[in-house]
Amino acid sequence: MTDTLETTATADDAAPTAAGDEPSAAATVRDLAGRARVASRDLALLTRAQKDAALHALADAVVAATETVVAANAEDLARGREQGMAEGLQDRLLLDADRVAAVAQALRDVAGLPDPVGEVVRGSTLANGLQIRQVRVPMGVVGMIYEARPNVTVDAAGLGLKSGNAVILRGGSAAASTNRALVDALREALAAQGLPADAVQLLEGGHEAVKELMRARGLVDLLIPRGGAQLIQTVVTESTVPVIETGVGNCHVYLDVGADPQKAVAIAVNAKTHRPSVCNAAESLLVHRDVAEQLLPRLLRELADAGVDLRTDERSGAVAAAAGVASTPATEEDHATEFHDLAMSVAVVDDLDGALEHVRRYGTGHTEAIVTEDRAAARRWVAEVDAAAVMVNASTRFTDGGEFGFGAEIGISTQKLHARGPMALPELTSTKWVVEGDGQIR
Amino acid sequence: MTDTLETTATADDAAPTAAGDEPSAAATVRDLAGRARVASRDLALLTRAQKDAALHALADAVVAATETVVAANAEDLARGREQGMAEGLQDRLLLDADRVAAVAQALRDVAGLPDPVGEVVRGSTLANGLQIRQVRVPMGVVGMIYEARPNVTVDAAGLGLKSGNAVILRGGSAAASTNRALVDALREALAAQGLPADAVQLLEGGHEAVKELMRARGLVDLLIPRGGAQLIQTVVTESTVPVIETGVGNCHVYLDVGADPQKAVAIAVNAKTHRPSVCNAAESLLVHRDVAEQLLPRLLRELADAGVDLRTDERSGAVAAAAGVASTPATEEDHATEFHDLAMSVAVVDDLDGALEHVRRYGTGHTEAIVTEDRAAARRWVAEVDAAAVMVNASTRFTDGGEFGFGAEIGISTQKLHARGPMALPELTSTKWVVEGDGQIR
Repeated sequence: MTDTLETTATADDAAPTAAGDEPSAAATVRDLAGRARVASRDLALLTRAQKDAALHALADAVVAATETVVAANAEDLARGREQGMAEGLQDRLLLDADRVAAVAQALRDVAGLPDPVGEVVRGSTLANGLQIRQVRVPMGVVGMIYEARPNVTVDAAGLGLKSGNAVILRGGSAAASTNRALVDALREALAAQGLPADAVQLLEGGHEAVKELMRARGLVDLLIPRGGAQLIQTVVTESTVPVIETGVGNCHVYLDVGADPQKAVAIAVNAKTHRPSVCNAAESLLVHRDVAEQLLPRLLRELADAGVDLRTDERSGAVAAAAGVASTPATEEDHATEFHDLAMSVAVVDDLDGALEHVRRYGTGHTEAIVTEDRAAARRWVAEVDAAAVMVNASTRFTDGGEFGFGAEIGISTQKLHARGPMALPELTSTKWVVEGDGQIR
Repeated sequence: MTDTLETTATADDAAPTAAGDEPSAAATVRDLAGRARVASRDLALLTRAQKDAALHALADAVVAATETVVAANAEDLARGREQGMAEGLQDRLLLDADRVAAVAQALRDVAGLPDPVGEVVRGSTLANGLQIRQVRVPMGVVGMIYEARPNVTVDAAGLGLKSGNAVILRGGSAAASTNRALVDALREALAAQGLPADAVQLLEGGHEAVKELMRARGLVDLLIPRGGAQLIQTVVTESTVPVIETGVGNCHVYLDVGADPQKAVAIAVNAKTHRPSVCNAAESLLVHRDVAEQLLPRLLRELADAGVDLRTDERSGAVAAAAGVASTPATEEDHATEFHDLAMSVAVVDDLDGALEHVRRYGTGHTEAIVTEDRAAARRWVAEVDAAAVMVNASTRFTDGGEFGFGAEIGISTQKLHARGPMALPELTSTKWVVEGDGQIR
């Protein structure tokens, strides 16, 4: 899921420090990361039972802190309104008692998931008698840089704890008070459980602090940026810490010549309108020229009726006009844009190759769907589209950790290294080879 | 395996270009990567049978080119000798007919390995009837920056082809002529098989070209540096392309109080002396204080007799002196150094915690071995040491793709993301989620 709160680091969120000299951003990050590293050593050795008990204790603590959290959130909201924050963003930022309860429940849900740590991925006994096995271990210290709703703060802490990682959280400045209240509650609860409070830390301070976090290679094992395209781009290009790129989704739905018309309309409408603000919503509609006349009039009308702003290429624009559906000519940029909104680019393509070429040119490697009853076309789509998820006769909205049955999601990776697609607990782990012998030498 | 040929990029290896303007390094890399991307699309769709046939054809071509390759290699060697290249490096660089035959055989061996592409990693049918499966797919375009022996050129091309990736090879300037002769032979053979020659490309040109390769995010999917610590450090810090860090190994052997004396001596000697120039050789010896007097005299003598230059801390130095074994006092740097040679730092530690602390401080996360018959100590070592491979009663030399039964190795990852430890064919792949439905919407 992607969020559109703007930049995470502005001059106005410089952290208040004790009177006297402010520590440098580098020193702050080194200190934070050093404490996270120490905490991570303890976390790596916890049993599942200990971690699950702690997760329930964290949930209790979040519920107990409802009043404080809601008050802190009201501060953030008031500041946001003063600064002219859009209604939609205000709604994302809002935490009322119900939402706090939901955030706490998410921690309990994570407690119910299997522990990824210790899972034996593969193993064998070698000819010389050595027993080798590859075992999942925590990453160590995971940094999250996000702009999103404050629930990410608690989700990341919970998933981090369950996977045995210490987390360093850098939330958006718009949610600064809320995040502080939440992290305070979580840290107190960890300490009360006899666990290291530094398992969860909030990185405050200005843009310099974020820069230092991105350069803390060796101190931080993994950085996950979650937010708009610009935030992700910054982290990806400026970071020396290994990064998992998440979430930018310019997803396409391609209606093939072999599409079932009912499914075509239902899938395209659902992919676009079910929840337009998230990364697995469709942004572009492609239609084979031989079925454009048949499918587009009804489909474009349904989309327009649902409030979708249609940006059509020449051929689809002509069909729209003939059908009396309003649309504006698509620019090159429209085809390349993740609208995050009720807007969609539409193009007619000559054939499957044209659709594949369009996706290659404009796609972001997130989710690409074909609607077809033709086996050969479906097989080519699955084989030739290079994306985290390729779909046949299903809405792009299904690329989601919850839908895939992972029970939780820390983000959706659009890169090829380590994790691709929805990331859950196993993706927050690394592995270690354990080699046991009785004196073998080479 | 790590190599110690020095820097890969020197001013003297600027690529000769056609008369007139030289293309900029950025343009060269864009062109190369663009052609690799086009080739990678074809490669991704090849069947195992096609790839294996091609690998055998490549092997035949390498053998057929023996004379040309050996002549080119003689040029490189002559240049190296002129520039005062060390004997050991000359030996690494040397390709005679036998070594060319071995390089070709390695391609045939890769043909015999299972195809990682298309492997279903996991999958399920969701409650709504959607069938989802996570399938291995090629990375796309993989760049290799290496200083090593010219066999890496052929190995990387072979592993790349088998895993469906196009490779961009940047070898050390010392092997420039040899690499060019090898790549020419490989590209001709690919074309003769009806496969894209651009599946294997050599990046020539000066340091700017390497810099552009490291910045070619979006064009190159993965960079693997193989070589000395400095090369790897440069790639890791300057690259915006995802990198897998390989090979720096400051490996320890810890002789616990519960060590079997025979195994202790055999493992320590083997780990240090079996092949001191490679990354899984041991560089540091740690001994529990309660067994130092018992184990060290015999062990240090054996090491010294094998020609090992011993760098001892105060306590181990005293034992050495009493036993009449020559040693020099270890500096802080000695403990942190990967000698790549017959040299070893030695330290006496108070207990298991002292050994763990020493490894945390100086280890590089490669391979760490304990020698002990004590179950509790072994369990703590395995759980608490943070490294790609942790060993109990076995030589560090076993961390190796061949030894682990992978049949091939492209490097040994010491990072936690994507791959950790010996990397073979599966580590050169990403995954893709394939979602098949019959009209599902949310």
